[in-house]
Amino acid sequence: MQGLHILAEFHGCACAGGPMEDAPELGRLCEAACTAAGLGVVGRLFHAFGTPDAPAGATGAVVLAESHLTVHTWPELRAVTLDLYVCNFSRDNRAAAEAVYAALADAFRPARTVRRDVARGNPAVTPSPDAGIEVI
Amino acid sequence: MQGLHILAEFHGCACAGGPMEDAPELGRLCEAACTAAGLGVVGRLFHAFGTPDAPAGATGAVVLAESHLTVHTWPELRAVTLDLYVCNFSRDNRAAAEAVYAALADAFRPARTVRRDVARGNPAVTPSPDAGIEVI
Repeated sequence: MQGLHILAEFHGCACAGGPMEDAPELGRLCEAACTAAGLGVVGRLFHAFGTPDAPAGATGAVVLAESHLTVHTWPELRAVTLDLYVCNFSRDNRAAAEAVYAALADAFRPARTVRRDVARGNPAVTPSPDAGIEVI
Repeated sequence: MQGLHILAEFHGCACAGGPMEDAPELGRLCEAACTAAGLGVVGRLFHAFGTPDAPAGATGAVVLAESHLTVHTWPELRAVTLDLYVCNFSRDNRAAAEAVYAALADAFRPARTVRRDVARGNPAVTPSPDAGIEVI
């Protein structure tokens, strides 16, 4: 269960339409990025908000043998949030995670990114005294 | 896109079998927890590892109108990782997130939890100088 979790937000995306609004296209993009990086895709599920005439973003998940990729788009804000969690059960997947991240950044072309890297599943992490809740 | 993301790890779970190993049961648990909390489920996708005779954990996602819930189990470690991201587009979903978290903790009965709460989508977050990567 130990691994890398990248939490990222893309702001000011130059990408208009396409995966920003179209759920099947977003799903294909995400699955292709994971497959190209050598990650094991076990399924994907994507959903579009709004209507074809008035798209309101897309959302979904690629479930991986190594954990998951989730992406949510806000076309009205030209923004995207993504989470990529890759555990290192059978190998170190850090390079694969960076490859997926780069592929999504290439597709959405953000002007600004906010990214946090979290080490998951490390039993050495000491929770804070208040019932193990650590606020960051 | 602003909202709360709970990253949690459950260690020493008293739950044996059930949602720790059975993907459909894990999916039902996760979806029911979200629905009971008033969150909008748009789909779910769960997958089991191993074989019926030798289960090796389950993994999956509930895609929400408010973002997502993902859960991965490691029965051999009696451990679970979960991510629950609820954006506050139409209302403050913090209470709903806490209800889902409590329902999953009730189901898995961890002896110890490691939880991190991350505020997502806050444009006031300043990325660090190294290409916006902030390691926490």
